[in-house]
Amino acid sequence: MGGCAALSWFWGDPEWARRSLLTSSALTSFFAAGLLFLTRGDINLSRRDGFGIVTFGWLFAAVFGALPYILSGVIPDPVSAIFETMSGFTTTGASVLPDGNFQTLESIPRGIMFWRALTHWFGGMGVLVLCVAILPFLGVGGMQIYRAEMPGPSKDRLTPRITTTAKLLWGVYALLTLAEILLLKFVGGMCWFDAVCHTFATMATGGFSTRTASVGAFDSGVIDCIIMFFMFAAGVNFSLHYYALTGKPGRYWKDPEFRAYFIFWLITGLILTFNIWGSVYSRFLDALRAAFFQGTSILTTTGFITADFDLWPQPSRILLVLMMFVGGCAGSTGGGIKVVRIFIMWKKVIKELRQFMRPRAVLRVKLGGKAVDDDAVSHIVAFFTIFVLVFVLASFLMTFYTPDLETAATSVVATLGNIGPGLSAVGATQNFAAIPAPGQSLLILCMLLGRLELYTVLIVFLPGFWKK
Amino acid sequence: MGGCAALSWFWGDPEWARRSLLTSSALTSFFAAGLLFLTRGDINLSRRDGFGIVTFGWLFAAVFGALPYILSGVIPDPVSAIFETMSGFTTTGASVLPDGNFQTLESIPRGIMFWRALTHWFGGMGVLVLCVAILPFLGVGGMQIYRAEMPGPSKDRLTPRITTTAKLLWGVYALLTLAEILLLKFVGGMCWFDAVCHTFATMATGGFSTRTASVGAFDSGVIDCIIMFFMFAAGVNFSLHYYALTGKPGRYWKDPEFRAYFIFWLITGLILTFNIWGSVYSRFLDALRAAFFQGTSILTTTGFITADFDLWPQPSRILLVLMMFVGGCAGSTGGGIKVVRIFIMWKKVIKELRQFMRPRAVLRVKLGGKAVDDDAVSHIVAFFTIFVLVFVLASFLMTFYTPDLETAATSVVATLGNIGPGLSAVGATQNFAAIPAPGQSLLILCMLLGRLELYTVLIVFLPGFWKK
Ligand SMILES: [K+]
Ligand SMILES: [K+]
Repeated sequence: MGGCAALSWFWGDPEWARRSLLTSSALTSFFAAGLLFLTRGDINLSRRDGFGIVTFGWLFAAVFGALPYILSGVIPDPVSAIFETMSGFTTTGASVLPDGNFQTLESIPRGIMFWRALTHWFGGMGVLVLCVAILPFLGVGGMQIYRAEMPGPSKDRLTPRITTTAKLLWGVYALLTLAEILLLKFVGGMCWFDAVCHTFATMATGGFSTRTASVGAFDSGVIDCIIMFFMFAAGVNFSLHYYALTGKPGRYWKDPEFRAYFIFWLITGLILTFNIWGSVYSRFLDALRAAFFQGTSILTTTGFITADFDLWPQPSRILLVLMMFVGGCAGSTGGGIKVVRIFIMWKKVIKELRQFMRPRAVLRVKLGGKAVDDDAVSHIVAFFTIFVLVFVLASFLMTFYTPDLETAATSVVATLGNIGPGLSAVGATQNFAAIPAPGQSLLILCMLLGRLELYTVLIVFLPGFWKK
Repeated sequence: MGGCAALSWFWGDPEWARRSLLTSSALTSFFAAGLLFLTRGDINLSRRDGFGIVTFGWLFAAVFGALPYILSGVIPDPVSAIFETMSGFTTTGASVLPDGNFQTLESIPRGIMFWRALTHWFGGMGVLVLCVAILPFLGVGGMQIYRAEMPGPSKDRLTPRITTTAKLLWGVYALLTLAEILLLKFVGGMCWFDAVCHTFATMATGGFSTRTASVGAFDSGVIDCIIMFFMFAAGVNFSLHYYALTGKPGRYWKDPEFRAYFIFWLITGLILTFNIWGSVYSRFLDALRAAFFQGTSILTTTGFITADFDLWPQPSRILLVLMMFVGGCAGSTGGGIKVVRIFIMWKKVIKELRQFMRPRAVLRVKLGGKAVDDDAVSHIVAFFTIFVLVFVLASFLMTFYTPDLETAATSVVATLGNIGPGLSAVGATQNFAAIPAPGQSLLILCMLLGRLELYTVLIVFLPGFWKK
């Protein structure tokens, strides 16, 4: 936040914006130092402590990260400000802006907007460590199948191994970030501010834009293509990028999840294209561009917008909602249920039916030729079940705060899957400002639940969690 | 059908209605006799043959049962006529009537209407045998947990045991049918025709009415109460009714599924009451009556209507949709996923979270104090997953044939769960006549899938099924 204040001065923002950033950063540093002081020396963490730290860490970040919005008056309401920050750190990209005194995003001081983009980028870093280095070892939702896949030393003790893995992943993340910034600036022709902010939002699959019309504001085929490429990359397991950068690009196509992701991306993109060609766009190339940009944006759970897909034909609208459930690959910054889980679940269903026909046959669920541990399959199916139950329960509760069922259901999947925009009243050209505080609080919880892969947050609610 | 023709003559229906019933019954008898002749002596049935017989048996019934509608001209379109018949035999109650030359149900000859109600009653008989005597032994969707629960000799060979069980269940079914007819006639004040038709539709949790305004046409609190009681009873495992009739009424409350069903029914009924009291009904008793009648009708998957719940507040509308997914108890004539599956899934989710916190603890899913076989739990979760996948896929396809997402999604759940009415364009006061033939065909498949508990129909589509 301190850095944002300096930049804010550089960009000539009004003084109140700068002061709010400075005050926030002072307050946050003070509390963080206090926390560090209180917990010093206490490094023997149990499994349970781990969940607590991750959950409360994200909550802490969302509360303190909201200070610049509140103090500057850009989002005076605390719940909405926390909503915006949680949306940033969980890389959801659902926004309550523009609203109130700021009817366009362009009218908000750049320092605040930069902080907004930065919450995405930091969130993305946290997600990478969480999803590649931590969750597989805790076995969250069947992710133990990725234990052997991550880069870094495999024989070390947990803590140094996590540190090494995190550094390698962050290196890849930083490299891709740099590449996109330079491409957007020099090939796409954006200014530095737009290039950096959009890159942060792309690499984190976040979706916050600096423009009210999102990426559509630039109306440039070149920019669409650059952002689409990096959205696609951000939805891929970062371990694969690491191996590619160290000279093993063949690992991409060898990975069954990547193949499923690519094929699903291609097929859904084509379905969208042919559904909107003729009905929305008369030129095939326009339909192709809009369909693949929007498809990539939704499948990777980024949430950038170049076309108002809320006005597309019904089949396209529901296909986009289904893609929200699927999400990116495991070990990416993308949200949703994750491609590998859907893929394994599909194989489990086929296996179940075959088994049913031949009760005595011994059948296994296989991924890339290798049998998947039964336990992992069972956890994956349980994860899916929990995801659906949370979705259903939250959608029911949201009907109290939204005008129609479509808004209720898609506002939940858009936050639970960390996508951003939904349909109807939270559709492509709308935002979440109109949802009352209790509804926003529920969606804040959904964003956290989705980002921390459900289990991490849910067990905090189990009565047994708080017992010694 | 022959009996219907006789009744049709008794009621003084026009001659074309009577003739269509007679022709249909002759054609059907001829084909049935032919089939019996072809398959005579062939009684060594494999597991696979069993699935084939059940699936094609229902299809056969739906095709030949459609003849009276087509020949009489009440539903001239063959697809719509098969839709109506499949809806009858699967006890769904989704209807394409009134339509065309018959703008009210009251204008259709009684003989045809009686045949329509009879498809429900026969369907209910088929469902009872299938769900209590056959599916538990095939282990469909985890239903093996009910093997020990069914009435009849437990040590006999399969075929005589199924026969005995079927006779006992049909006895209970016939007794309850008789009781409801007498109550509706002498306490409710209906005519014999209405009493019998509505009883058939109640006991099968079917939902076809003889009136365009469904049960609402009678506008009688007494009739509402009688029908509500029998709908609730038809949603209960018929084994429990059998034990109650043989002097063990305590078995009801001892059964964990019955307790879950009763409590869920009570809570959802109360939520509906308080949600529509004030917003739709100013008098509390009116709200209570409408909420519990509609709640029971939807939860048991009957689908009778006394109030246009499509106009209720959003929370009530989505709650009703969720109740459609739940459905009745296992071993009842009700559809949906079934209470016991939802209940066990819920326990599995809790177990999964506890296990996650204490990876080394040995935890089991328990039902009524007894541990449930891990295999059965896994099948139940797989059943839920398949149900959701089929729902999602069919909803996507239905968007091509319906005006909005709500209609697409609820038309699928209303048929897949064998409920009948959905929301929006297939809502309480609407029917399925406006859906084009491909959409109706898809919904016919959904009704069959739901009624035969998915597996039975799905494995027919597996490439391996047709190999020797
Ligand atoms: K996002
Ligand atoms: K029904």
